[in-house]
Parts: sequence; structure tokens; C-alpha cells
Amino acid sequence: MKRSFIREILEHTTNKTISFAGGLPDENFFPNEQLKQSAIKVLEDKNTLQYTKSTGIDSLKEKIAQMYTDEGFPTTKENIMITSGSQQALDIIARYNSQKDITIEAPSYLGAMNVFNLNKLNQKEITLEDDGINIKAFEKSIKETKLCYIIPDFQNPTGKSYSQTKRNEIAKIITKHDGILIEDSPYSELYFETKSKIISKDLPKNSFHLGTFSKTLAPSLRIGWIRADETLLNPLISYKEAMDLHTNGLSQYILNDYLNDTHNFHSHLESLRAVYKQKMLLFKKYLDLYLPTFEYIEPKGGMFIYGKLPNINTAELVKVCLKNDVVFVPGVEFYSENKVHDEIRFNFTHTNEEQIIQGLSKIAVIVSSINK
Amino acid sequence: MKRSFIREILEHTTNKTISFAGGLPDENFFPNEQLKQSAIKVLEDKNTLQYTKSTGIDSLKEKIAQMYTDEGFPTTKENIMITSGSQQALDIIARYNSQKDITIEAPSYLGAMNVFNLNKLNQKEITLEDDGINIKAFEKSIKETKLCYIIPDFQNPTGKSYSQTKRNEIAKIITKHDGILIEDSPYSELYFETKSKIISKDLPKNSFHLGTFSKTLAPSLRIGWIRADETLLNPLISYKEAMDLHTNGLSQYILNDYLNDTHNFHSHLESLRAVYKQKMLLFKKYLDLYLPTFEYIEPKGGMFIYGKLPNINTAELVKVCLKNDVVFVPGVEFYSENKVHDEIRFNFTHTNEEQIIQGLSKIAVIVSSINK
Repeated sequence: MKRSFIREILEHTTNKTISFAGGLPDENFFPNEQLKQSAIKVLEDKNTLQYTKSTGIDSLKEKIAQMYTDEGFPTTKENIMITSGSQQALDIIARYNSQKDITIEAPSYLGAMNVFNLNKLNQKEITLEDDGINIKAFEKSIKETKLCYIIPDFQNPTGKSYSQTKRNEIAKIITKHDGILIEDSPYSELYFETKSKIISKDLPKNSFHLGTFSKTLAPSLRIGWIRADETLLNPLISYKEAMDLHTNGLSQYILNDYLNDTHNFHSHLESLRAVYKQKMLLFKKYLDLYLPTFEYIEPKGGMFIYGKLPNINTAELVKVCLKNDVVFVPGVEFYSENKVHDEIRFNFTHTNEEQIIQGLSKIAVIVSSINK
Repeated sequence: MKRSFIREILEHTTNKTISFAGGLPDENFFPNEQLKQSAIKVLEDKNTLQYTKSTGIDSLKEKIAQMYTDEGFPTTKENIMITSGSQQALDIIARYNSQKDITIEAPSYLGAMNVFNLNKLNQKEITLEDDGINIKAFEKSIKETKLCYIIPDFQNPTGKSYSQTKRNEIAKIITKHDGILIEDSPYSELYFETKSKIISKDLPKNSFHLGTFSKTLAPSLRIGWIRADETLLNPLISYKEAMDLHTNGLSQYILNDYLNDTHNFHSHLESLRAVYKQKMLLFKKYLDLYLPTFEYIEPKGGMFIYGKLPNINTAELVKVCLKNDVVFVPGVEFYSENKVHDEIRFNFTHTNEEQIIQGLSKIAVIVSSINK
């Protein structure tokens, strides 16, 4: 099996490399001190270090359920399974649906495509337009596949978000054909202005909704989850326990303690949204300055600016860039069939202004030498 | 897929249930205070909470490699992959070998059999004798399967250990037929008197050696590992990253800090061995008192006493026991083909004297009522 470009990059970059590649949060905003206080507290209890339930600890599941209920999507702890990041959530669902057909966006999340490949799912790519997936092609595809995977909020890699109209249409189409929606929402809380409506809310019996604390709190905790109706969720439990018995207990207890102060979590999210919006605007400023031919739509949240550098083979470009200690992900990585060669995904959350200037100016020099 | 009996039990027992079922360490000996100090230290660093490498953090891999080297089995960090417990290690290896035949012990570890089923491996059971697997049948089987899975030290469920003669023979046979050994060693450090030789040492290019901190330090950290030659290990990396990107970083950093003081870790192991030996002797005392017909061999380490209650269907017995708030695992759970109906696995590490007395006396009453 092919390795992930981004994971390989992560292992081969040095301290010198300026990386616009991974979907890395800015570590300056990790709540180290608060998580430390929670760690001190939960490590008083011997049970924190013992084996626990396969689906996760009850109190954390209840808190996550409450978040949905607060958004008008009634949910109990029986609808929640804690997973080792939402990557594992994808693997569990894909494993259960092994060898089936699945409708996905083009381009889509690399890690999902890898896990669909691993589980021998047959991926049918449908073009992602600026306001969401192409509806006509989506309906035609879902009629056959019955299963689909989409990232409606600040999509990875494109940063695009679905319009409310398309959200409604998708819910209707899936219900009509009795299909199953896998709605991946790692970036949903990282909106700059407004939060969009969860599509799964309109089809609670036909959806898996995936969430994670990796983008909002800290990736290293590896805490994600699946929200689904019990009839969909219960068959997955035996998979989860065969795969790793249960998700890291220490992280679950720490996170559970941290989330006891909901006000604190909400103000953390507020400041993260403000910071990331500023970072996006900063990135955009230098992008327009150094790479004026780069065509893109300004994202309204998330972690990525995606677009195209007309007539540049970005997979070739990145190789030269890597030698010059700057890296991004070429768009071709995000397609399984319809290869597009002039696209780039930039992450704007992890670098500071100096790195953005240095990195983008280096890329600009390399691009102009290619264009000569 | 069938759920694990033990995992289901764990979810259905109450505070009142006396459980001899799971392989749970005694939480009174978890190093809470030291792990707390390590947590405080590592959470000073922002990087502790960021994404990390798919195969694990370098310093922890180096420490694990050093443990092998210290035992005369030369190992570098390139031979180590950190996994989410050794359960995930089994899943990764099984996934890579999906649909192949595999030789296993009968009885064997339930979680391994589940993960082999999940990955559609065809399991060939070979009788486990008191000094290890039946060698003649093993050679015949490995000729065909080329792949085998064994637990040579204080086996789960039987508590049996392989003689040095059988270890040598197994290494020779696998080498001769160019097979692959999966050597699972969760209990190897929990010996009462002497540590046995790692079989993989004699076939470093044809073996996966699996380890974990779940039984020696704390299960909730979910830190296990695979030790293998790079030619065997490298193809697994893309699987690991598709499955969950990487193992919990916070746990890895905490453990890495804890292991900086090797003297401390060794004295922890020393006291654990002494405590568990005493617990085993205590359990044995009451077992002989309350269930004198139970036939078993006294284990020399590990966590289990295994044996048979002649003419008792233990799968039926456990149902009655559960209603009376005491539970064990019936032997039938540990076989895939040759069902044996009168065997029982008792865990002796997790209960205290009062619980042992209460639990075993209850079972004795139920058994005698059946025998009437």
C-alpha cells in the first residue's frame, strides 16, 4: 500500500523545512496548562490507568452527546463511540463496509481515500463545486453506491463549504434512496463567522457523524468519535475492540476533566477562531503578493487555502521546493481517478508570518524559474 | 462479528461482581504518582500535544530497542513500531497477512483469534502441551501456513511456558521452512523466578516480536510495540498511518519520561513480580480449598491459572455464576475449532483475598449444586 504523502513529508522534513503541508494546528494555542491541571487531577485516581470500555468512558460520551443535543440534534451516550482520532472512526466504518462502492468528493481527504483503499472500497468521485458536491452527479452515484463520504464544512483539501440548499438536497436524496451518509466534521468548529447546520441532523437513522478534538484542542490526545443511531453503531463495537480494545483511557479522562468547564472550552474555541481567521488573512496577503497567478477562493474557516497555479505541474514543483526547504501538498494527491496537475493545498494555521514570507517567496522564485 | 466475551463481561459487570475474567493488572500497583510527575514535565512542552510520527516518537523507540539490545538481541529504533497496545500490533500484522493461513496454539488468546477472524486469516489450531506447542504437529502445519502466532511465556489463557528445547526447535523449524513467527510477549516480564529466552532472537529476519506496557505499567496508556527486521516492519507503516495516523502522543511522551529512570522501572517490575507471585499462591490456596477437583498446573508467571473442572460445562456454569455476581472465562472461548467444555481461566492478579474467598466459595456452591 502507498504511504500518505503528508505522513511521509512529516517524517522527512527537518527543523529547517517550512511546511504548508500538514493539517497541523498552531501549537502556541494548545491548552497545555489546563490539560496539565486535568492530568494532575485524574491521575489521583487509580482507575484512570486501568482498562476501560471499548466504546469509551461514559462521562466523556455524555459530554459529546450533550454538544449535539445543545445544537438541536438529540443524542445520548449510546449514540457515541470514542475512537483513536477520527482517522480510526473512518477505518472502523470502512472496515464494516469493506468492498462496497462509496461516493466521495473530488478532491477529497487523503487519509480517507487511503483507508477506503485499505478496506477495498470502490471510490466513485464526484466533482466538488464551490457550494458543495455536484448534486445531479451525486444523486446518480448514490443510487448505486448507497454509501457516501463528504466533508461539508471547510473541506479538506479545498476549504470549501456546502450551501444550506445543497445540505438540504443531500439529506433528501440520501433519505429517498435509503443510503448512508458519512459526514466528516473535523473543522466544523473552526468557522470564522457562522457555524453551518449538521446534515446528519436531517437523517439521524442514516448517518455517521464524525468529530474530533485533534483540530480544536490537541492532535496528540487522539480522541475522535462517531455519532450514529444505535442500529448503525452497535455492529461496529466488535470491530473497535478487535482493533485496539479501547481508545487511550488517560487521554479520555484528561479531556473529560477539561470539558467539565464548558465555558473555558468555548472561550478557547472563540480565540482559536479569531486567531485562525487572522492567520488566513495573513497567508492570503502574502499569497496574493508572491503568487499573484494562484487562483483560489478565500475559505470561511478550517485550515486550508486551496487553488491552482495554471500550467504548473505542482507534483514536480513540490520536489524542487522540498530541496529548498519548503513544502506543500500538490493537488494530485487528493484525487483517486481524475488527476488534476496544477493544484496546491496550503495549510495556513501552522506557520508564522516570517515563515509564510520565506516559504511563499521561495516558492515564487522556483515558479518563476520554471516559467522561464 | 462476534463480540469478545471478556469485553462484554467488562461492560455488564456491576460494582458487586467479583471478576476473575479479564487480564486486568492490580491497580494498586499502577505508578500513578510517577506518571503524574512525568505528565507535568512533558506537558510543559507544546510539542507534546502536536501530531507526531506514524511509527512513534524516536526517544521511546530507542528505549525499547535498548531493552532488546540489553537482552542480547541487537535492535535499533528502526526495528520498532509503537502501536496502540499490542492488540493493534496484532491487527496491523494480521491485516497485512489477510486471508492467509496461520498456525496458532489451542487454546489461544481470544483477542488474537478475533483479530485473525476480522482479517479473514484461516486459523490452524495445534495443541498446546505443558512445555509448549506439539512440535510434530507444529512442523507439519507451518510447512503449509508459513505463518504462526504463539505466546511462549505464561501463555494466555493457559499460563503455560515453552521449554528451552521447544523454543530452539521452533526457531529451527521456522527457519528451515522460511516461515514467519509472531511472538506475543505481554507477560514475559511478569516471571516469578526466571525470564525465558526470546525465540525471535534466533530468527531476527523471520519474526515479529510483540510487547506492551499494558501488563507491566498501565493498560490505559495503550502503548505496545512491534519489533521486527526493517524488511518486515516497513511495509506495515502505511497500514498503521491509515488506521489511526499514529499512537497517542501524550502517552508516549509520558512513558518516555518515566523510562528515563531505568532503575525505577526495574524496581517497579521487581515488586510487581513479587506481588503477583504472592497473589498466585493465595489464589491457589483457596482454589485447592474450594474447588479441589479443579486440575491445573501452577503457573510460573503471568496473570492466569487455567485448568479443568471434570464433567462440568463451564460455559453453562458461568451463566449461573454471573447471576450470582462472580465471573470467569470458560475455556471454550479460547478455541476456534476443537471445543473443550470443561475448562476455566481464572485471573489471579486483580482480586484481593476477600474477593477470592467470596468468589471461589460461591462458584463451589454452584458447582456442588450442579453435581447433585
